[in-house]
Amino acid sequence: MSRSALDALVEALRRLPGVGPKSASRMAFHLLQHDQEGARLLARALDAALERVRHCRRCNTFTEHEVCETCLDPQRDATQLCVVETPADQAAVERTGSYKGLYFVLMGRLSPLDGIGPREIAMQRLFERATDGQVREVIVATNFTAEGEATAHVLAEGLKAQGLRVTRLARGVPVGSELEYVDLGTIAHALVDRR
Amino acid sequence: MSRSALDALVEALRRLPGVGPKSASRMAFHLLQHDQEGARLLARALDAALERVRHCRRCNTFTEHEVCETCLDPQRDATQLCVVETPADQAAVERTGSYKGLYFVLMGRLSPLDGIGPREIAMQRLFERATDGQVREVIVATNFTAEGEATAHVLAEGLKAQGLRVTRLARGVPVGSELEYVDLGTIAHALVDRR
Repeated sequence: MSRSALDALVEALRRLPGVGPKSASRMAFHLLQHDQEGARLLARALDAALERVRHCRRCNTFTEHEVCETCLDPQRDATQLCVVETPADQAAVERTGSYKGLYFVLMGRLSPLDGIGPREIAMQRLFERATDGQVREVIVATNFTAEGEATAHVLAEGLKAQGLRVTRLARGVPVGSELEYVDLGTIAHALVDRR
Repeated sequence: MSRSALDALVEALRRLPGVGPKSASRMAFHLLQHDQEGARLLARALDAALERVRHCRRCNTFTEHEVCETCLDPQRDATQLCVVETPADQAAVERTGSYKGLYFVLMGRLSPLDGIGPREIAMQRLFERATDGQVREVIVATNFTAEGEATAHVLAEGLKAQGLRVTRLARGVPVGSELEYVDLGTIAHALVDRR
């Protein structure tokens, strides 16, 4: 009744990952009481992102163009393709400054228990991308979690069947951790030691 | 450049309390990749709340009307006024089912270090509200934190000067904790034992 717009806002905030009922109600209070400008900004940013952000036709990452800047960069080594789960993982690899090849972003990982199979991640598009005739090595940089490892295994099988050289980040990356939280030195080392 | 709509979304999400750069980028990824409907909902809920939610003229809580439902309820005891910091605290007191009076919501607490003085919280409006001739007792239910206690002290001084009976929730509420996280039994007990 009298609080429905507020209740609806709390409900909508709860759809954000990691936000429970108390956090959502604190966020709603903060926005309405102390940061209405932030609330307006967020509403506009959501609309703009929904309207403009799409997937790069080549590497599948988020972009506002048909093909992303990284894929269009003539300086990048088109014979290497690094496969990551998310744009955040791609950013982590980029920040090491030790990789000059191209990327493919799965936008997820295989997770049969959650109903996420090869069709839910862009596996078929990866196979098409990797067999463009230029790519010679695919570096599988999925996370070193159980699901990331399973995904890496399935990808490696499929890519090797196409005659491609498939490597995996070296196990310098601590097992059980997620790539975007790993320190840059460890990622850089793992890139050099890939096997 | 090519990721500006996405970057703007991450920046906007960071304005939410308790959300750092990693959480913000995870939220943006989740919304764009897995829950575009949720992103749309959130944008609309923000707009609706900004447009419709305002402060109750009597008790200062969030409402979509001139005066909120609680203040209009003839069943409530108009001689008692419970002062809380936020609508979430008010909801916590309501859930105990052991208070039948009315409320006043400060929408904050005194915090000189953050530049929050009597003018930033609705202290003057509380004094006007409490001296309506009907209110006989003001129950100060600000949080039992350092800032909440300081606020309670300042409020009590001012309200007593107006000749009102001022009580404070009993110290059954664990010192150092915040009201909205306290179990209902403790809040109920503290209401009975108010001093």
